Amino acid sequence: AVSESPLFPRFAPMSTLNLYDVTKYTFGTKGESQKDSKKSSSAEERQKDLEEKYKKRGMRRSVGAVLLLQNHRFPHILLLQSSKRPKNFILPGGRLRPGENDVDGLVRKLQSKLSPPADVATPPEFEIGEQIATWYSPDFSERRYPYIPAHVTKPKESHAVFTVQLPDSCTFAVPKSYQLLAVPLFEVYDNMEQYGPVITAVPSLLSRFHMNFIGG
Amino acid sequence: AVSESPLFPRFAPMSTLNLYDVTKYTFGTKGESQKDSKKSSSAEERQKDLEEKYKKRGMRRSVGAVLLLQNHRFPHILLLQSSKRPKNFILPGGRLRPGENDVDGLVRKLQSKLSPPADVATPPEFEIGEQIATWYSPDFSERRYPYIPAHVTKPKESHAVFTVQLPDSCTFAVPKSYQLLAVPLFEVYDNMEQYGPVITAVPSLLSRFHMNFIGG
Ligand SMILES: [Zn+2]
Ligand SMILES: [Zn+2]
Ligand SMILES: [Zn+2]
Ligand SMILES: [Zn+2]
Repeated sequence: AVSESPLFPRFAPMSTLNLYDVTKYTFGTKGESQKDSKKSSSAEERQKDLEEKYKKRGMRRSVGAVLLLQNHRFPHILLLQSSKRPKNFILPGGRLRPGENDVDGLVRKLQSKLSPPADVATPPEFEIGEQIATWYSPDFSERRYPYIPAHVTKPKESHAVFTVQLPDSCTFAVPKSYQLLAVPLFEVYDNMEQYGPVITAVPSLLSRFHMNFIGG
Repeated sequence: AVSESPLFPRFAPMSTLNLYDVTKYTFGTKGESQKDSKKSSSAEERQKDLEEKYKKRGMRRSVGAVLLLQNHRFPHILLLQSSKRPKNFILPGGRLRPGENDVDGLVRKLQSKLSPPADVATPPEFEIGEQIATWYSPDFSERRYPYIPAHVTKPKESHAVFTVQLPDSCTFAVPKSYQLLAVPLFEVYDNMEQYGPVITAVPSLLSRFHMNFIGG
């Protein structure tokens, strides 16, 4: 019980997350999708690409998932690490299609990043929870802020972060260009340099939730 | 509209905060309360005091308020700064009495820290909103984490942070040992050294809220 307090405010019941033991999950890889493998490599190329897309489509919208499990009764978060340089950590998720809503888009992205091919194992059921944060990019760099910075009238990207409830057990399969890691929350807390602003903020964002540790 | 997104998840309406212009509020001081003036000064003395109280009463419970207003359509947070050394910034709030619930305690603390004496002006009505974070102290130091650190079975303090809706105008009066400041959110973001973990996290914690700028 990470955040059990004897008296809750009368108006909002505390949100709960179930954390199942790490041993209940199986981790594997799957073949690269066409799209992942043709990703541009240099930061400059990426920036140019983003600028062109912004001119055509307007603000890019993306979504990310906070997926939790427990090891030794401490919450761990599932992060993807790119096996290419830079070996950035990201929340599972990605860019929405024009007109696609957050929840549908996040389910689609979690399937493409985490689910095994349908003929190999039953795909996990991801239950999208609450939106816990929104991040904004004022430009085409990697910088992100939890508000629209002063004097920025049109942010170039918004990134919505949701809690996602994992099933009590499942098999994950990630594209070969990524590694899926279960990182303890204390490791990402106050560690902006290694994990960036979006992931570093997750422990604070989760501190209002009741964590329900199951098994282990 | 800091965090307006075209489509919300169907299950949770977005929380809204009304931000009135800074010019709608009046800032003043009031006499020291007996209790504030006799506060121990050295860090060592404070720690000893906390240890003794812990032995008698168990985990200390405290609450803090995020009170927002706007200046030039950018959110500002009301912070108290001690005029004694160290000139720490804190969220308005304080320690709960044994058995006191979070909401009643926070209202009481906001009145003692921010309201003018009853014979001077109408005291502001503070509308306690949502709990947005919980912080834990593993020991009697100033360190705080948004989780109970591993291997800590009994945290020494829990600190619950709530959004609080200000009225559309009012008069504040703070004890002479404090200054009340309206600090822009971008100033406290990623500024752990100056503002500490609890205040630095506020911009991320608020990023899921819809900010409604009124007047100015
Ligand atoms: Zn164990
Ligand atoms: Zn671990
Ligand atoms: Zn103005
Ligand atoms: Zn200002």
